[in-house]
Amino acid sequence: MAEPLFERLCLVGIGLIGSSIARVARARGDIARTVVATTRRAETLARVRELDIVDLVEPDHTRAVQGADCVILCIPVGAYAPVMREIAPHLARGCILSDVGSTKGSVVRDLAPLLSQDVTLVPAHPMAGTEFSGPDAGFAELFQNRYCILTPLPGTDPAKVEKTAELWRRCGSMIETLDPATHDKVVAIVSHLPHLIAFTICGTADDLAQETREAVLKFAASGFRDFTRIAASDVEMWRDVFLNNRDALLEMLARFSEDAHALGRAVRWGEATFIEDRIRRGRKIRQGLIERKQA
Amino acid sequence: MAEPLFERLCLVGIGLIGSSIARVARARGDIARTVVATTRRAETLARVRELDIVDLVEPDHTRAVQGADCVILCIPVGAYAPVMREIAPHLARGCILSDVGSTKGSVVRDLAPLLSQDVTLVPAHPMAGTEFSGPDAGFAELFQNRYCILTPLPGTDPAKVEKTAELWRRCGSMIETLDPATHDKVVAIVSHLPHLIAFTICGTADDLAQETREAVLKFAASGFRDFTRIAASDVEMWRDVFLNNRDALLEMLARFSEDAHALGRAVRWGEATFIEDRIRRGRKIRQGLIERKQA
Repeated sequence: MAEPLFERLCLVGIGLIGSSIARVARARGDIARTVVATTRRAETLARVRELDIVDLVEPDHTRAVQGADCVILCIPVGAYAPVMREIAPHLARGCILSDVGSTKGSVVRDLAPLLSQDVTLVPAHPMAGTEFSGPDAGFAELFQNRYCILTPLPGTDPAKVEKTAELWRRCGSMIETLDPATHDKVVAIVSHLPHLIAFTICGTADDLAQETREAVLKFAASGFRDFTRIAASDVEMWRDVFLNNRDALLEMLARFSEDAHALGRAVRWGEATFIEDRIRRGRKIRQGLIERKQA
Repeated sequence: MAEPLFERLCLVGIGLIGSSIARVARARGDIARTVVATTRRAETLARVRELDIVDLVEPDHTRAVQGADCVILCIPVGAYAPVMREIAPHLARGCILSDVGSTKGSVVRDLAPLLSQDVTLVPAHPMAGTEFSGPDAGFAELFQNRYCILTPLPGTDPAKVEKTAELWRRCGSMIETLDPATHDKVVAIVSHLPHLIAFTICGTADDLAQETREAVLKFAASGFRDFTRIAASDVEMWRDVFLNNRDALLEMLARFSEDAHALGRAVRWGEATFIEDRIRRGRKIRQGLIERKQA
């Protein structure tokens, strides 16, 4: 077995993603000598102890991060700023501060100003998840063959970036590097807008007259079921994602909306060729996904 | 084994749905003594012979329907009117004319005027499908535990409705009856609008600047992958569905669009409570689906 990458890995937050990292670390043994989890909810704390997936459970964030050579924020992105204000003075010299958030511009915005010179920020976004949340939802295989995007700022110590990349490789992920702005645009269209649409269409269905609504629940066909699967996702996490990727999300919503209305107009006016063209493009991009083995 | 329901069952069109009915009939033996498939594409014809899933393959629609006590249209709904003009004079006395189309108002509109008094129309919509098409895509289990909605007009011979229902029960389906207008509204929101959205968002992604687009293909997360799965569906079928359920689809698109923009507005102005409420509603309706075991 390889030497552990870290002496003390501190997971701030231990939900789906945090507990999956903990499980990989426990299973492999070569990620950290000690894994500490910190979370303020007493219930989650107790459950994590029961699950026995970390070496130490510590309710106090400031104590948890002390002496850690790697701290990963696994909490909703809206909580980064207040948590960072708490932990910043307690981060060890030489520590890598990373995270798993779905927005990266906001992470740099919220963490960088409070960063001391001897702590290195390496933001990360593992492109993996399920519609379930909490420490029971995690599993060691979650990151297998999924991309993990790193968005280090220019000038970041390459050794620290490489160490973070190696952590994710040991979790089974493929590493890519993007600047935060490009990352945020890409996830706005591949993930955030689909979630916004999914939450919305559920509400639209829920607003229908009682009779139709009952039938909707009964006859939910594959299209609607797929949409509602992601609509089961965590409330606080997605609220924070939307609010912290506002510009890119609103741009993608505007583009999508124009395109949906163009297709709606073609339906209204019976423009068969236009409709066929849109459907063919859908098939084409799907084919692109299959060729990349992401399907 | 029960007596076959029909002497001669004629499937007009033998793609995903038609070939799945054929496979059930072949597997069970109690649906029809003889199953005839008719299709005009020579390639499909040859393939159906190779697959050996029907008793007779007949390129001429008018000859295929002769003597059939049940004829099921399994072609895109836009082809119903011309095909009906051809076959109507050749339908046998006492024959049940049914279909599997995803729009039902248009079916009544296109078929009823050409119906002779001794033929009974029993429109049906099996709520089952995959993103694949053609005779190779079918399988006998496709309809198992899925709803099949019948939309007979008032005054239809109850014995003929029951016989059609029994066919679908033997295919493994659960039967429901709706009027065509309610059916069209329900499928507009549970199936047609999700497909319109899926086709659209693929196009939106495809229009992004080259660099972002490459990344989109690479990082397509679960949300986007789910959307693009249904976007792989058949072009002609979906063009016809959109054009033949225009009013209900445009109404649902308008409602959805208002709701999406309301959520977009809340994101712009940082209205956290409104956003949380929308997300919670999504989870709630998803929960409703799970309770109904449709998930």
